[in-house]
Amino acid sequence: MPANRPAAALSGTLTAAGDQPDAAMTRLRLDLSYDGSGFHGWSLQPGLRTVQEVVQEALGRALALPAGPALIVAGRTDAGVHARGQVAHTDVPSAAWAAACPAHPARRLARQLPPDVRVRTISPAPDGFDARFSALWRRYSYRVCDDPAAADPLRRHDTLWYPRRLDIARMNEAARACLGPHDFAAFCRRREGASTVRELLRLEWTRPAPGVARVTVIADAFCHNMVRALVGGLLSVGDGRRPPDWLAEVLAARVRDPRVIVAPPHGLCLEEVRYPAGQGELAARAELTRRPRPALPTP
Amino acid sequence: MPANRPAAALSGTLTAAGDQPDAAMTRLRLDLSYDGSGFHGWSLQPGLRTVQEVVQEALGRALALPAGPALIVAGRTDAGVHARGQVAHTDVPSAAWAAACPAHPARRLARQLPPDVRVRTISPAPDGFDARFSALWRRYSYRVCDDPAAADPLRRHDTLWYPRRLDIARMNEAARACLGPHDFAAFCRRREGASTVRELLRLEWTRPAPGVARVTVIADAFCHNMVRALVGGLLSVGDGRRPPDWLAEVLAARVRDPRVIVAPPHGLCLEEVRYPAGQGELAARAELTRRPRPALPTP
Repeated sequence: MPANRPAAALSGTLTAAGDQPDAAMTRLRLDLSYDGSGFHGWSLQPGLRTVQEVVQEALGRALALPAGPALIVAGRTDAGVHARGQVAHTDVPSAAWAAACPAHPARRLARQLPPDVRVRTISPAPDGFDARFSALWRRYSYRVCDDPAAADPLRRHDTLWYPRRLDIARMNEAARACLGPHDFAAFCRRREGASTVRELLRLEWTRPAPGVARVTVIADAFCHNMVRALVGGLLSVGDGRRPPDWLAEVLAARVRDPRVIVAPPHGLCLEEVRYPAGQGELAARAELTRRPRPALPTP
Repeated sequence: MPANRPAAALSGTLTAAGDQPDAAMTRLRLDLSYDGSGFHGWSLQPGLRTVQEVVQEALGRALALPAGPALIVAGRTDAGVHARGQVAHTDVPSAAWAAACPAHPARRLARQLPPDVRVRTISPAPDGFDARFSALWRRYSYRVCDDPAAADPLRRHDTLWYPRRLDIARMNEAARACLGPHDFAAFCRRREGASTVRELLRLEWTRPAPGVARVTVIADAFCHNMVRALVGGLLSVGDGRRPPDWLAEVLAARVRDPRVIVAPPHGLCLEEVRYPAGQGELAARAELTRRPRPALPTP
């Protein structure tokens, strides 16, 4: 999950940032799920199988376009990371959409897709919609099994098998100190000129089943590696190797800390992307998100 | 899931049916989970990867035995069928168990196993325990997704994607007529001399999540293909192609009905095997189960 800002140039034939497609074009919203195991992440990479490439090519075939239309996505997931609630948009010629649009466009597209990626719904987007910049927040989950007697081979593709028992209450104590707006540089892969300030809205562990621990992570946006580094830090607290207040210390230092181990990708899943409910708010939110984020004052 | 009766000769070095291992041997109970996708079912087949072969060989290595000890299992699952609650037993030299038995025998065994099969627990079995014949009942589940917008690629290995919407109430109406002791010949692959009488204790659909339908099936034992044929029959009722009373008609005819389509294996999972709680009841149950089952009177 690389940075969702700044508004860097993206791939392909995208309309300029902030532009709405002209009348001859229709902006489509796609809701996607995928098993990240067989993909080298979301973003196009020459010669590698990526979700973006597979979906763009399928969409091109379904709409009888000469090439797959460029997709802009809410969360550019890393290799091995899954999604149940990914959202993307793309601009296609309105004539192609009208010609190809059947009663069930998602079914038409499903036939062009391999079983490890599904476009659950596809439909014209409301005015001002931008999958990346209109988003209010992203919700991820990370799933861990900490009891060998509960290990389920059917869930091994989306669950980290952890060799030590985890103390949920202890991890939640550590997590609370990270909530709110912070400079998350300690948990991010640094990118030149990119802010690492984010607002963490939720970071909470539960036990959905015996032997299974699951953390829900919500933020307005995430920098690269941020969820997996937070999870890795919390696991060190949960198994007793670090004290609960260690994570707040790491955060306050604002430099990448090599003691924080980035958790493996396969436990992570993008569950949901939330957008403003009102149409008028979509463009306003996108404009706000595109602004450079002010640095936080040093405490 | 082939027939669990009659007490036919099984594989390997098993002690004679009904015998307890002598003092120099220890009977172990193993509780297993596996993803059936990569296996040609439970039972040994020359040249094919089966769960039995993989677990027996791992157990032989973990206990430093010259060969993997023969496993007797509660449900001999077919190719592609999964298990979360499989139970097996095996008899091993007591000296080998004592020598190899560490504080965490399941962890020792886990290191010898591939990630698609886990032995969750392994320990000496109580007197009279027989994984196959002491069982009171087996519980299976079958998972179906009947809404393309709910298709989850992460669960595609254990979920049937069904192209039509299913009416749960209609399927449950059809299911009720199959409860109780019946000759299930209509839903079984026939085997010469084997009874097809079983007692169906539960057959009930629920919706654990939007777009997902799940049936729980409990019987004292199952004949070959029985769960998948019942599920296939119920799907034909649930999507409206057959009336709810059709299944009872098929059952009453007591002959394999080609109109009943056997559902694919990958939606099916052996969830639990239940044994008598009291030790004294284990041997008694095994003796009872081994008796030839009387034919039901023609209604």
